[in-house]
Amino acid sequence: VPPKSLANLECPIAQSLEVIGDRWSLLIMRDALDGFTRFDEFEANLGIAPNTLSRRLAGLVEAGLLERRQYSERPPRQEYVATSRARELRPVLVALYAWGVRGQKPGARTMVLVDAESGDEIEPVLVDKQTGRPLVEITALFAAGPAAHQPIRDRLDPDARVERRQRSG
Amino acid sequence: VPPKSLANLECPIAQSLEVIGDRWSLLIMRDALDGFTRFDEFEANLGIAPNTLSRRLAGLVEAGLLERRQYSERPPRQEYVATSRARELRPVLVALYAWGVRGQKPGARTMVLVDAESGDEIEPVLVDKQTGRPLVEITALFAAGPAAHQPIRDRLDPDARVERRQRSG
Repeated sequence: VPPKSLANLECPIAQSLEVIGDRWSLLIMRDALDGFTRFDEFEANLGIAPNTLSRRLAGLVEAGLLERRQYSERPPRQEYVATSRARELRPVLVALYAWGVRGQKPGARTMVLVDAESGDEIEPVLVDKQTGRPLVEITALFAAGPAAHQPIRDRLDPDARVERRQRSG
Repeated sequence: VPPKSLANLECPIAQSLEVIGDRWSLLIMRDALDGFTRFDEFEANLGIAPNTLSRRLAGLVEAGLLERRQYSERPPRQEYVATSRARELRPVLVALYAWGVRGQKPGARTMVLVDAESGDEIEPVLVDKQTGRPLVEITALFAAGPAAHQPIRDRLDPDARVERRQRSG
C-alpha cells in the first residue's frame, strides 16, 4: 500500500520508500551491489520464494535500479546488473548497517565495513559536504523547498514544530 | 515475511530491516522524530488505515523505538514518543532523503535539509570518522567480523567477490 497523503507525495523520503521500501528490495540491492546477478544467487542468499523474487526483480528493473542482461543464448538466460542509480543507494545500506551494529561489542561483530585496501575498519558518519561538520552536531531539520505545495508546507511548518517539541519533550 | 537465510541472520542490514523494513515503519519514525506523537497525527500525515497504524505502532514499541506515554487521564489516552534508539535512525532517513533528491534541480525541491540556526542547506555525505575521507573515494566493502559463522563468511568471501566483479563488469 503506497503512502497516499498529499504531504507524502512531495516528501523525498516517502518517494524513496515507494521504490525500495520493503526489506526484500533493499536486500536484493545489497546483493546486486555486491556483484550478485543471477536469479538463483538471489534466491539462495535471501531464502526468498521464487515468485516473490520475480516480482521484486521486475519492480527494480522498472524503477531503473537493475538492468537485464542476457548471459546465455542457449538456453536464453538473463541476469540482473545494478545501474548507476542503484550504486547511489550505498549510503542507505551503509546507514542501515551502522544502525544495526551500533552498540555491538567489537568481538560480537559478524560483519564489518572495511577499507578494501588497508583492511581498516570504517566508521561511517554523516557530515555536511560544505562545512565538514558532523550532522549530529548540527540542528538539522527538513524545511519546505521552493516547489513545495501547501500540504508539505503545513507538515514542515516551523512554528508547529516548536509547539510539538515542547509537547514531546 | 522475514529473511530466512543463514547469512541474513548475521547481516546487520538484514537485522535492521527486520525492525524497520517496511515503508510505513520508516514513515512513522520520520514523523515521530519530527515530534509527532499522537495516533490521529500519524493517521492524517500518512493516510494510513487505522488498523495498520495500530499494528505498526505496537511493533515499534516492542522494538524499543517508541515509548507509550499517557497524556490524558479522562479519557485515558496514550501518545508515542521516540526513544534514543529511534533518534539513531536519523542517518537512515537522511540517506533516504539524499537518494530521493539526487539529481533534482534546486528550484524543483519540495523538501530541503537545512541547518536550523543558519538556514543554510546541508548536503549530507558519508565519511570515515577516523580519516574524514568520503566513502565514495574509498573502496569500502563489507567483510566477515570475528563472530561470523560460515554462511555469512561464504557470502562475504573476498575471492568469490573478485570473481563476481569480473563477471558483472
